[in-house]
Amino acid sequence: MITIDWKPNKQDKTPIYRQIIRYINDKIAAGDWPIGSRLPSQRAMAEAFGVNRSTIVSAMEELISYGILESGFGGGTRVASNTWSLRMSQPPDWNKYIASGPFRANLSTIQTINKMEFEPGYIRIGTGELSPELYPGRLVSKIFRSMPERIPNLGYLGPLGLPELGKALSAWLKENQGIDADASNIMVTSGSLQGLQLVSVCMLKRGSNVYTEAPSYLKSLQIFQSAGMQLSGVSLDEEGLQYWHIKEASNDALLYTIPTFHNPTGTVMSQVRRKEVMGFCQKQRMPILEDDAYGQLWFDEEPPKALKSMDKTGSVIYMGTISKTMAPGLRIGWVVGPEAVVYRLGDVKMQTDYGASSVSQWMMTELITSGDYDIYLQQLRTELKARRDYALAVLEKHFAGLATWNKPEGGFYIWLRLRHKVSMDKVFQDALKAGILLNPGNMYDYAENHAIRLSYAYADPEDLSRALASLAAMIEKHLKR
Amino acid sequence: MITIDWKPNKQDKTPIYRQIIRYINDKIAAGDWPIGSRLPSQRAMAEAFGVNRSTIVSAMEELISYGILESGFGGGTRVASNTWSLRMSQPPDWNKYIASGPFRANLSTIQTINKMEFEPGYIRIGTGELSPELYPGRLVSKIFRSMPERIPNLGYLGPLGLPELGKALSAWLKENQGIDADASNIMVTSGSLQGLQLVSVCMLKRGSNVYTEAPSYLKSLQIFQSAGMQLSGVSLDEEGLQYWHIKEASNDALLYTIPTFHNPTGTVMSQVRRKEVMGFCQKQRMPILEDDAYGQLWFDEEPPKALKSMDKTGSVIYMGTISKTMAPGLRIGWVVGPEAVVYRLGDVKMQTDYGASSVSQWMMTELITSGDYDIYLQQLRTELKARRDYALAVLEKHFAGLATWNKPEGGFYIWLRLRHKVSMDKVFQDALKAGILLNPGNMYDYAENHAIRLSYAYADPEDLSRALASLAAMIEKHLKR
Repeated sequence: MITIDWKPNKQDKTPIYRQIIRYINDKIAAGDWPIGSRLPSQRAMAEAFGVNRSTIVSAMEELISYGILESGFGGGTRVASNTWSLRMSQPPDWNKYIASGPFRANLSTIQTINKMEFEPGYIRIGTGELSPELYPGRLVSKIFRSMPERIPNLGYLGPLGLPELGKALSAWLKENQGIDADASNIMVTSGSLQGLQLVSVCMLKRGSNVYTEAPSYLKSLQIFQSAGMQLSGVSLDEEGLQYWHIKEASNDALLYTIPTFHNPTGTVMSQVRRKEVMGFCQKQRMPILEDDAYGQLWFDEEPPKALKSMDKTGSVIYMGTISKTMAPGLRIGWVVGPEAVVYRLGDVKMQTDYGASSVSQWMMTELITSGDYDIYLQQLRTELKARRDYALAVLEKHFAGLATWNKPEGGFYIWLRLRHKVSMDKVFQDALKAGILLNPGNMYDYAENHAIRLSYAYADPEDLSRALASLAAMIEKHLKR
Repeated sequence: MITIDWKPNKQDKTPIYRQIIRYINDKIAAGDWPIGSRLPSQRAMAEAFGVNRSTIVSAMEELISYGILESGFGGGTRVASNTWSLRMSQPPDWNKYIASGPFRANLSTIQTINKMEFEPGYIRIGTGELSPELYPGRLVSKIFRSMPERIPNLGYLGPLGLPELGKALSAWLKENQGIDADASNIMVTSGSLQGLQLVSVCMLKRGSNVYTEAPSYLKSLQIFQSAGMQLSGVSLDEEGLQYWHIKEASNDALLYTIPTFHNPTGTVMSQVRRKEVMGFCQKQRMPILEDDAYGQLWFDEEPPKALKSMDKTGSVIYMGTISKTMAPGLRIGWVVGPEAVVYRLGDVKMQTDYGASSVSQWMMTELITSGDYDIYLQQLRTELKARRDYALAVLEKHFAGLATWNKPEGGFYIWLRLRHKVSMDKVFQDALKAGILLNPGNMYDYAENHAIRLSYAYADPEDLSRALASLAAMIEKHLKR
């Protein structure tokens, strides 16, 4: 929790250890370093402040003598008090508050990833995002130029979002996915992650089962677990989710699935399996939450249409987004479902953030209605396919004896299954030290695994090649031990 | 829930009652009208479809004979089944799902308001939003033109938001509010409503007390109640919240306050009261959640600085936003607090919507750093003051015998307290019929009241004048009964 991003000024007349005392005291007084927090080791602090360890020892001793720090049992130093005098006013016990609330913290690996993604100098071989090199700057500039004429004002919008975007999405979904949905069946969200969040807090009871593919992207989130639901993994084969493993009579349950270019395995559910899954769920009267973040990103041929396109009884809640195809920064997704469902979701959305950015919604409207989005997607498919081919060639070269993998027909991901057991935690940490940020497969799975989610969408292909070569060497070294 | 926005085609060869049967059947089959939903009255349907009541009766009879509709006990017709044959596949029982989940539905008055705000033809005399007439179109166009050069790409951002915006807010908060906060103490949110939502799910235990002014804007939301917390109203006088009514030893509690231009009463907490509240909370070690949505909107003199500016111990979580001063559609707010707190909030934000729109964040950055925002605020203050003066004059004319009210020194609201008891629900409904949308005071209060939240920010002043004249007449008529 505690980070040090300051160094004493060696030009200053105040002795360096005094400057450090003042810095630490200010941090504690401001509540930035809450009571009970553990300080970094003396060696780490010496390094962070750029001083000798003896200077740290002097500063620590003084702060301990004031009762501001204390030596913990079993080593380590902790924050004990936050004022020079305990009679002075005190901040709230933030650590207690921070530990409260039903929403769980992110998995620590994901916290690390979220943080390291913004540190320069790492090769990111698992990032589920398009490379900045693929950013269509000219297209976005064109959209920006059209905005002043498009936008009448930037007032609040209603529960379903910008009506113009609802209409545009209705037409586009019909054309692209064969999905029949009126604007009244479509709600705009701040990315499809928010669609999941809304479903978790307003459509399911505590203790309900949420079935998902195993492995699944959903497992890497804490959304449903934070709301008290149970995630149950359902195994996958090359045709998709093996629905027959779902227990019958699963009252109050929900099936979450990514049928097309599944995250993290890249699997596409076959047409036959789609029909079976639909039939099974309709018989069980179990709703399906279909996540179609990657469906547009096919290479050689169009995948089967979305489950929602076969949905004649209103059993499917469908989620789409522009985050994976072009611009996650817009934070725009859409949920399609029966009116009663989107009405409920919209009502809660109005209470949680009062809608998605209307600038983003207008930009999305322009992008779709101008036809520019479809043209852009065609170009993107070609570029992504070249990246996939390159990644597969690199794997063939370095991982042939070490792992097996799929050949994805679209989307971002290769699911690299190591042939032998190694500590994935160790691999993650060692890779990090070598400047490689990877997504270990156990983030996504219900049981231990030895897999890595690779993405050919983000890293520069040459960087990816170098990183995979060192990763292979690293894993070989582990195996030899 | 059920709305009819379709009419039969009188040119069509299919008999009209058959067209209606098909329309209703399609709606039910698609799950838009879930099983158990109640249909509008025959008269209302006849009106909505633009047909005779006898046509409706024929259609209903046929659908009832198929078992698709059923006559309810005590009148009314409900959806009984959703397929021609019960052996066919069925959609999930959406009504059951919709009623699940811990998040409560909005108060029904608010649902009505959220909906009617997008129906044309109503005069909105309570809307907490700037009039579209005050929209600075030229300024926003200028910001749009600067975007292509500003924005390098639209990728995902980290937990605290756009670093450039964090830096800009840090400098601006120092300059404008005397708040000392590094970028590492600031998290960008999708409007300050999201700040509240995040605090509700990750900083408080179920059963914790949240103290607020009575009345309070917070009461009109279900955020804390949905997360299992208790709201407790604390009375207000002309100097602000009467903190001495808060019970001591309120472990795990939080104080939510709008000290400046309070919503809905317009009150400004005095400097003396601010110091007392800060001292009281520090003694109790109770965190303060300070909502400063209106602080910039002063008329003649600057109000006292934010509580956060006096916060030397890190006891205050401060929330600001651009929604009330310029552009709610940007959906940009900010939370300022100890690093450990914003880190926790940011971690959960990453799991719920992965950040606010980065286009909105870049626009906000440009707005602040260019200095345009401060110039704009100066002009806005003059215009809002003129609107307030006009509203006060209108009230003097029509409400002198009927109500008492405050003279706000900033913000949007006049809290109109009726002198005599009338049914506020009746007033709301009658006003609605007369084309006036108002915010009844009981939405904001903990006990029954007879007040109305007026806003001079939204309605055109002449419309506001006409609406207030009819409202006064309406209330007088009620009192005479």
